[in-house]
Amino acid sequence: MSKITLQAIADQLGISKFAVSRALSGKVGVSEQTRALVRSKAVELGYFKGAGAAPRAAIHIVFHDHDPVNSELWMQMQNGIQSEAALSGYEVQLHWTRSAEQIENVARASAGMVLVGQHGEETLAALRRTRKPVVRLGWVSPLDPVDQVTGADHEAGSAIGQYLRERGHRIVGFVHGTRVLRGRMERLFGLNEAYVGCPGARVHEIQYGEEGFATAFKTLLEQGDRPTALFCSHDGLAVHVISELHRLGYKVPEDISIIGYGDFAAALQISPPLTTIRLPGEDMGIAAFRLLLERMNSSRRQLPPQRVMIVPKLIERESVFRLQQD
Amino acid sequence: MSKITLQAIADQLGISKFAVSRALSGKVGVSEQTRALVRSKAVELGYFKGAGAAPRAAIHIVFHDHDPVNSELWMQMQNGIQSEAALSGYEVQLHWTRSAEQIENVARASAGMVLVGQHGEETLAALRRTRKPVVRLGWVSPLDPVDQVTGADHEAGSAIGQYLRERGHRIVGFVHGTRVLRGRMERLFGLNEAYVGCPGARVHEIQYGEEGFATAFKTLLEQGDRPTALFCSHDGLAVHVISELHRLGYKVPEDISIIGYGDFAAALQISPPLTTIRLPGEDMGIAAFRLLLERMNSSRRQLPPQRVMIVPKLIERESVFRLQQD
Repeated sequence: MSKITLQAIADQLGISKFAVSRALSGKVGVSEQTRALVRSKAVELGYFKGAGAAPRAAIHIVFHDHDPVNSELWMQMQNGIQSEAALSGYEVQLHWTRSAEQIENVARASAGMVLVGQHGEETLAALRRTRKPVVRLGWVSPLDPVDQVTGADHEAGSAIGQYLRERGHRIVGFVHGTRVLRGRMERLFGLNEAYVGCPGARVHEIQYGEEGFATAFKTLLEQGDRPTALFCSHDGLAVHVISELHRLGYKVPEDISIIGYGDFAAALQISPPLTTIRLPGEDMGIAAFRLLLERMNSSRRQLPPQRVMIVPKLIERESVFRLQQD
Repeated sequence: MSKITLQAIADQLGISKFAVSRALSGKVGVSEQTRALVRSKAVELGYFKGAGAAPRAAIHIVFHDHDPVNSELWMQMQNGIQSEAALSGYEVQLHWTRSAEQIENVARASAGMVLVGQHGEETLAALRRTRKPVVRLGWVSPLDPVDQVTGADHEAGSAIGQYLRERGHRIVGFVHGTRVLRGRMERLFGLNEAYVGCPGARVHEIQYGEEGFATAFKTLLEQGDRPTALFCSHDGLAVHVISELHRLGYKVPEDISIIGYGDFAAALQISPPLTTIRLPGEDMGIAAFRLLLERMNSSRRQLPPQRVMIVPKLIERESVFRLQQD
């Protein structure tokens, strides 16, 4: 029996013992966010140390930073990793650091590592020295021999392009911020591909910084081109774009259609509700742990490094207008 | 004990009993091609029916056609599937057909299916009706909710572009045939991406049909642009390109560098030996079977459809010239 009771976890979080029980047993009845919170707290308090199957070893998740824009996705991933690791009796410990030295020390004491975000070359070299199994959640270089789990950015960009083409959109924009993240570029490349060979098509890259979207959009209009649809690189960015378009007097979707990326909470907060791509964050976390488990334990033949992409879904809501019937 | 002896298999194939034994036991000492032949013959003769762990059920591999260009890769994949399936006691049966009706009938009697090549929508719809697990080896549409194992075409194209950029090549060509295959387009897209933002770079698409490569190349020269490097969409095509360049009086790689794709037998037959991408065909087959096994048997939570890409390797030989030092 664990010395840490369900009641103790419930007290610390200010929720019911019932909710804690549901969360830890993997049953329905609590939100995924609550489940992740409960699991984190249970790990922190050492609940799993005494309960049920004693953890055999710890795997460590190292986040590059506290990126608020990606916190929803990362919470889902973390939850997926933890729930799947618990089934195999592994404890999960979390770190937020970009110190190569610290990460190397953590790795040496670990059974395996999950790296989330844009870790630098120094960190990657340090990890290679430890020879511990590592799975990356985040962008890697082409043919980099490391295991990676991703959300199929490129394919999603192409699918969105096809979706907009089928609805008659020919002049479209890809909207993103000044931080050039590789995954976002992949979505743009995928969008471009969908319009290859499409008569009259123009795909604009609309990048904006602190001046906001409206300024960048006006610049495009002054150049004489007016997109009928915008693919936003992130739901949060779509919220900004829709609100600025409203302030400029445009109607969404009648004047301009908007597609987001992520299916985060903001997608249902904004009006109109956002058509977007639902990222399978929890499933990505589960896949990451399973790949790690295969590397840590398997008696099966070890395959070369892999990319595992969980296929995301296009969620149709009300932010895309059909310009023509097929 | 099996009624079919190792000697019977050896006699049918005209090879030694020793070779048959090595091949079936998964030991070294026989070529992978021989191993595949022996396994196919053993399955055909019903060897596995009585031997060791009796097969629990059959999985079926359905090839779209007898494509001679891809036969080496498909032989590797088939070998990977069969060797991995044997470990789990599954028999493997092979089919070459594009008849939706026939494939549906095969599926209904199967434990799971592996589809190789460009099967049509009618076949895919028929398979969905059977609700049998299916893994695709071959191109699928963006966000198509089906499991797929691939060789990371797009990433490989980008890696080749980076490799050529680092060696000073700015005017490059992607050479392919008239049959537009999606995987080949992915390599071209990847190559294009590697040259985004590279000053003075031009990426030409060189497509030729029955008239041969030389004619298409002369057309490009008449337009006033002369590539210093060509990425060929397949090793077999690279053999054609190199031989035609030789006949036109060009030296490879001093005048024009060539990169292939596949690392098939032809890569070492042609002179100079070909720098190319080694496709992990056998590992792709193993990955396909493991994904199928997960869908057929797993008591674990089923994840959404996946793309599993086995990361291929760039094999450096003598067909690429370094134009500049970094």
